[in-house]
Amino acid sequence: MDTLDYLSDRLDKTSDSIFLTDLLKNEDIKSRLEMINSEIDIHLGKDGEPKILYETAKHLLKAGGKRLRSLLVVLCCEAVGGDITKAVPFSVAIELAQTASLIHDDVIDEDTLRRGVRSTHEQFGHKMAILAGDLLVAQAVKMIGSLGTPEIIVQIAEEGIRMCEGEAADILLNADNPNAMTIENYLEMIQKKTVSFIKAATSVGASIGKGTKEQISSLRRYGENLGFAFQIRDDVLNIISSSDISGKDEYSDLLSKRCTFPLVHALDKSSPEDRERCLQALSEGDMSVALHLVERTRAIPASIEKTTEYIRKAKATLKEHDFVNAHLLEQVADFVLQRLH
Amino acid sequence: MDTLDYLSDRLDKTSDSIFLTDLLKNEDIKSRLEMINSEIDIHLGKDGEPKILYETAKHLLKAGGKRLRSLLVVLCCEAVGGDITKAVPFSVAIELAQTASLIHDDVIDEDTLRRGVRSTHEQFGHKMAILAGDLLVAQAVKMIGSLGTPEIIVQIAEEGIRMCEGEAADILLNADNPNAMTIENYLEMIQKKTVSFIKAATSVGASIGKGTKEQISSLRRYGENLGFAFQIRDDVLNIISSSDISGKDEYSDLLSKRCTFPLVHALDKSSPEDRERCLQALSEGDMSVALHLVERTRAIPASIEKTTEYIRKAKATLKEHDFVNAHLLEQVADFVLQRLH
Repeated sequence: MDTLDYLSDRLDKTSDSIFLTDLLKNEDIKSRLEMINSEIDIHLGKDGEPKILYETAKHLLKAGGKRLRSLLVVLCCEAVGGDITKAVPFSVAIELAQTASLIHDDVIDEDTLRRGVRSTHEQFGHKMAILAGDLLVAQAVKMIGSLGTPEIIVQIAEEGIRMCEGEAADILLNADNPNAMTIENYLEMIQKKTVSFIKAATSVGASIGKGTKEQISSLRRYGENLGFAFQIRDDVLNIISSSDISGKDEYSDLLSKRCTFPLVHALDKSSPEDRERCLQALSEGDMSVALHLVERTRAIPASIEKTTEYIRKAKATLKEHDFVNAHLLEQVADFVLQRLH
Repeated sequence: MDTLDYLSDRLDKTSDSIFLTDLLKNEDIKSRLEMINSEIDIHLGKDGEPKILYETAKHLLKAGGKRLRSLLVVLCCEAVGGDITKAVPFSVAIELAQTASLIHDDVIDEDTLRRGVRSTHEQFGHKMAILAGDLLVAQAVKMIGSLGTPEIIVQIAEEGIRMCEGEAADILLNADNPNAMTIENYLEMIQKKTVSFIKAATSVGASIGKGTKEQISSLRRYGENLGFAFQIRDDVLNIISSSDISGKDEYSDLLSKRCTFPLVHALDKSSPEDRERCLQALSEGDMSVALHLVERTRAIPASIEKTTEYIRKAKATLKEHDFVNAHLLEQVADFVLQRLH
């Protein structure tokens, strides 16, 4: 298909991007990820009954993942001069909560692939998947409660509330509801669905590190911009990347009629007739018109441009203070911009 | 059907039981339930976006329910001489978490009726129901976090973990797995699924009231015995009560091949041949053999006897200290023994 060839080209043009493996080439980041992973391994070693429930809960955790949020907790603690060993347990709790949300999201979205493995409900069934998500949340809450920091519990719970709101908004915002498919609604939805929890990770890290109010505010804005960039990049990858690389279902956003940046951009730049035709086709399960409009309106380059803008803003906030590890936070920002999975 | 007539008779014989309305006739209990409900009303008044998510989350809360766990938080705080107004926000958080678990359980068990209304997923779909459960958990965690008591968060999270384990055990323990259908496995399963959270309610209440270690221990055992009685009574009602009275699906336990006290009692008192025949039939969706064995082995009277024994033990623990409202806690125990819904 011509359109797809064009889109695949886009991927080739970013093939000099930083992979996760490239991020790991930085020894400082690697050592921090190792701290997080070894704490996750300790968690994975703890078992309970019934075994199958714990196996279900561990399935995605074991599959790896970018550990972006947990890395941000640790790096933002360090940025303000905090002791990173204090941040590690929080970063694991954040990873558990994030994994719980992925498990429930996959049930809700009926996705079959995640982190390169079968999604949790595909592997263990819907019932165990729902319970495993609940279990991970309870474990995360227990972990943070044990650290004796109620104000951080409140922060994370608030962002958890936002995530639920965002996921619900995401369900409602689709091609069956054509008038709602606007850039404005899209940005509001991802702010809740994705941005809030990434922002929480930076904010929690900086709070544990006992940063000043101003430092915490800058790192929150860093996280916020990173979050927008992260989600738009995710949307782009869903179109240009194959399952082998992304570890997720191909075209699942378009197939499930979802609102993504490339799509709302394409709709925004199209005539009312094309817009209607595209949404009608999507609603009927046909994504060819949408892919054509994405190509014609240069929605992928526009998305990449938008991501770049957010990453530029994220990096700018890092200049507001003399963060000791600003270069590492910059590198994470580059990764978010250029990641292929 | 003869067997059903017999079982309905059992219900008639308990028709002088204490209904929730009877419990409300006690002015002291009524006033405490009103405190809890008015705090829940304040919570229900708080709205967020998307509206449909909040509506979904409120559906079961609005439908009422027994408020047993929240009442126990308040009464156990009072029992040790604590200020009940301090216990009310915790009792609401416990109610939210409990409601979340009911929403997810109904999705998992495919139940269609709860608290006399359509179950949440029946009314709003599976996707919104899963998210609404998650939202209620996040709201409960935020609420408890705001009260600045990390040790209580840990307590509740631990019992939340137990509940997930219990619900998973419940899924695995069914007629398709005949060897596992024993009284011992049943008791272990309900200890996690039901007892743990009722115990948590008594323990949290007593902790907030600043009870002594001994007082807390007695009230925990009160809650534990109450919890066992509560679940066995639930099992009995699922067989003898109609939807109109129980507000739940009729015979849903037997139809979904679940392990309940009347069933494991009946199996325990039957010949190996009858046991096998019964489980085979249940496994094929036919509950007639099970109902016949329940009748022949007098499993309903035996279940009522067992419940009575737990309630007797629960009341005995109340004698271990000079609890100021022991008479109210006794009345709650009577309600658990005799409730019809």
